[in-house]
Amino acid sequence: MNRHFINPTAVLRLVGLILMMLGAGMVFTVIVAFIFADGDQWGITLSMAITLVLGFSMWKFLPGEMDLTARDGFAAVTFGWLGMSIVGALPYLFTGAIPCVTDALFESASGFTTTGASILTDIESLPHGILFWRSFTHWIGGMGIIVFSIAILPFLGVGGMQMFKAEAPGPTADKLTPRIRGTAEILWGVYVLVSAAQAALLMFGGMDWFDSLCHTFGTVATGGFSTKNTSIAFYQSPYIHYVITVFMFIAGINFSLHFWAIRGRPGKYLESPEFKFYALMIGISVVILSALNLFRGQPFEPAFRDAAFQTCAIATTTGYATADFELWQPLAQVWLVSLMLIGGMAGSTGGGMKTARAMILLRQARVELHKMVHPETIYPIRIGRKSVSNEIVQNILAFFQLYVMIAIFATLFMAALGLDLVTSLTSVIACMSNIGPGLGEVGPTDNYAAIPMVGKWMLTFLMIVGRLEIYTVFVLLTKTYWSR
Amino acid sequence: MNRHFINPTAVLRLVGLILMMLGAGMVFTVIVAFIFADGDQWGITLSMAITLVLGFSMWKFLPGEMDLTARDGFAAVTFGWLGMSIVGALPYLFTGAIPCVTDALFESASGFTTTGASILTDIESLPHGILFWRSFTHWIGGMGIIVFSIAILPFLGVGGMQMFKAEAPGPTADKLTPRIRGTAEILWGVYVLVSAAQAALLMFGGMDWFDSLCHTFGTVATGGFSTKNTSIAFYQSPYIHYVITVFMFIAGINFSLHFWAIRGRPGKYLESPEFKFYALMIGISVVILSALNLFRGQPFEPAFRDAAFQTCAIATTTGYATADFELWQPLAQVWLVSLMLIGGMAGSTGGGMKTARAMILLRQARVELHKMVHPETIYPIRIGRKSVSNEIVQNILAFFQLYVMIAIFATLFMAALGLDLVTSLTSVIACMSNIGPGLGEVGPTDNYAAIPMVGKWMLTFLMIVGRLEIYTVFVLLTKTYWSR
Repeated sequence: MNRHFINPTAVLRLVGLILMMLGAGMVFTVIVAFIFADGDQWGITLSMAITLVLGFSMWKFLPGEMDLTARDGFAAVTFGWLGMSIVGALPYLFTGAIPCVTDALFESASGFTTTGASILTDIESLPHGILFWRSFTHWIGGMGIIVFSIAILPFLGVGGMQMFKAEAPGPTADKLTPRIRGTAEILWGVYVLVSAAQAALLMFGGMDWFDSLCHTFGTVATGGFSTKNTSIAFYQSPYIHYVITVFMFIAGINFSLHFWAIRGRPGKYLESPEFKFYALMIGISVVILSALNLFRGQPFEPAFRDAAFQTCAIATTTGYATADFELWQPLAQVWLVSLMLIGGMAGSTGGGMKTARAMILLRQARVELHKMVHPETIYPIRIGRKSVSNEIVQNILAFFQLYVMIAIFATLFMAALGLDLVTSLTSVIACMSNIGPGLGEVGPTDNYAAIPMVGKWMLTFLMIVGRLEIYTVFVLLTKTYWSR
Repeated sequence: MNRHFINPTAVLRLVGLILMMLGAGMVFTVIVAFIFADGDQWGITLSMAITLVLGFSMWKFLPGEMDLTARDGFAAVTFGWLGMSIVGALPYLFTGAIPCVTDALFESASGFTTTGASILTDIESLPHGILFWRSFTHWIGGMGIIVFSIAILPFLGVGGMQMFKAEAPGPTADKLTPRIRGTAEILWGVYVLVSAAQAALLMFGGMDWFDSLCHTFGTVATGGFSTKNTSIAFYQSPYIHYVITVFMFIAGINFSLHFWAIRGRPGKYLESPEFKFYALMIGISVVILSALNLFRGQPFEPAFRDAAFQTCAIATTTGYATADFELWQPLAQVWLVSLMLIGGMAGSTGGGMKTARAMILLRQARVELHKMVHPETIYPIRIGRKSVSNEIVQNILAFFQLYVMIAIFATLFMAALGLDLVTSLTSVIACMSNIGPGLGEVGPTDNYAAIPMVGKWMLTFLMIVGRLEIYTVFVLLTKTYWSR
């Protein structure tokens, strides 16, 4: 069927289905809560019940066929993430861990968008069930984003990611649902495998099973929630720092490539020009930050370790911290803010604008200069052996422009609330790029508790906008989208 | 002749011609210096002699025909501005007003690019000849930029300004030289007329002829050099503030429109969609900043006056100050930084990205959202009754991207010198957008004296890059440009 208008009940039924799956996943949190029995178990159980009932009702009692077109996809994804963020706030509210609705929603959205920005001031005082839930929202969000970026985005024809269409594993059906299901199952297998490997390695390093799981969730989803007030700096063991560094690096890679590696074709990594760009960017950053750390008088091993950790934490938009980079040189700070903008690979759990877009933007800039000299010549942009269509280039330029414009408007908004320039700017970038820590009042050793309430709403909105690659959300704000 | 390579001697001969004209113009400065006889007269006379001899030698003794193609235009403009900046530094050096070469070049480039950033800490202690020269470089630079943006840029096919080709007055010859000459003569007439009007109005308000001329130069060129340490805040008279506000507003308008107004067709202003956008932007800004000033407890008239003055000073990239906006609310500060990025109208003496580009970027963002929903539909971008070609849109998107990328790299560079984030970022924006004051260590009551030497070189480069709309300079850095 070739509908040319949105099917709202089908979208809501799909959101109901997503909530049912989320509710089912909550059972792990309930189990953990009952194991520790810190007093949060009933609040979490109630949240699970409500989520299941709500999801089931939406799916069962709303009329209409589950027949979705690409156009419905935008609404389904946006409302899916919004729905998860809303019910995900229930455990915080019902257990009293976060009594304020704005704060609970901020924390929940920060989890599902794998941002890792927190309004909590004393994390370690929280009951185990809530801590687990907090990290678990990252893991679910990471799962969601892999499917979103590899299976759904190319189908919607959004964000210039069409070029990666061919790279997605799984059946290449033309209908939305079977294709997504097939790809999702394969990628989730990879995701679970990577997670299991990290959790095992962390436990091997002496971390208990609870913290290992929570930090694994935060790492593979490039989220950044920790169970410790001082984040990863809590752990003295260089081994643990290195394990998390490596898995942050892995989480910033397109999961399709991991799929091929597991299937015995690790050569696919080096065949990917985007991977080479990503690895080079990380490599250069580690060298620069190591040098700066040495210059500040750190001994060699910690200088390298902090540089590698902080590079991966920021470039993959995880946001974990082993060091307070607000005390680093201004160059290191501006460098890290620049990495925030670029972010991880397309098809990873990382946020930001994505290395794929950064590559094309860099090449496009060169092409424009050549075109000045030879206006009549056509310069195709190539990424590896593929040439990138003009349409995709224009789309990426527009994405970049939209990103910067939204950042400017949002910074104005935050500044209007009385926040200083650095806090306004970096809180916006850190949330829209799904990183977590910024600079100023939201630096790596601070949190978002002191941001005024409307500022938290704005940042929550930005987290979802950034996570869904802007277009997916903004398209819903156009009149065209809703008209027939 | 259809050469496909650059003609270096013709370019240098043209630069020689520009220097001769500049040398001839220096006679006014020599006269002023002799009137006041502060001891700087011989240094300035020597500078004039060197400029004339150098220009004449280049023009006379270099071989080759003065036969220039569009391609040569890029080099001619870039080296022309560079050449003016270099000989323009001589008066500072020979009189000992600025003994350091880096500083003298910074001040000179800041003058000719109409930036208005200064390394001087005590302006009022300078001899009159030097003060006059400093402001005069603005005026010459403003003249140059009007011709550059209205006559040369469209001819080079650069920067998406082709759409304004039709708006330029004068003969529409296809050869570079006659067209430029014809347009230049007309526009300079308008420029002189506007300048004379402002100088007369300032003198009418009680300012002496010397300060009136210097401040007129700084205003109509949207430069910002003052003869007073405290800039326009030195003057208590609201009348003077309002005169300068109005003329900054005028200087930010496309001078072709003034030409038509003088020719009896003032309706052309309102026919221009870019003018409406520009006026609306200024109007909104005055309302917002007035409200913020009232909120801070200022009485109504000064609140409005400061808001109008500061809006025009920043939006037109003049950079004069009647108030220290670093003491204003964060919203006002971020708002002013955003205005810095947009700048004045194309074809004005204002810097920044230009309102024409901002308009098209805003419309393009909306088009991209519509395209998500209806990928098959073509949405033409219209500015007024004209539709903008896809090529121009892509060029403007690329310009925006290049602008932001250069700003990020330059900010990294400045931060590497140890400057804090706010100073690094706003010094880069203030110089590349040709404004002058930024925030932090380069705020409206500070100056650029404390910036490390290599930082001054970088900012000098950025002033020229920004003034010549990026492409003109960057195209010279490509291999394609120099190859046959």
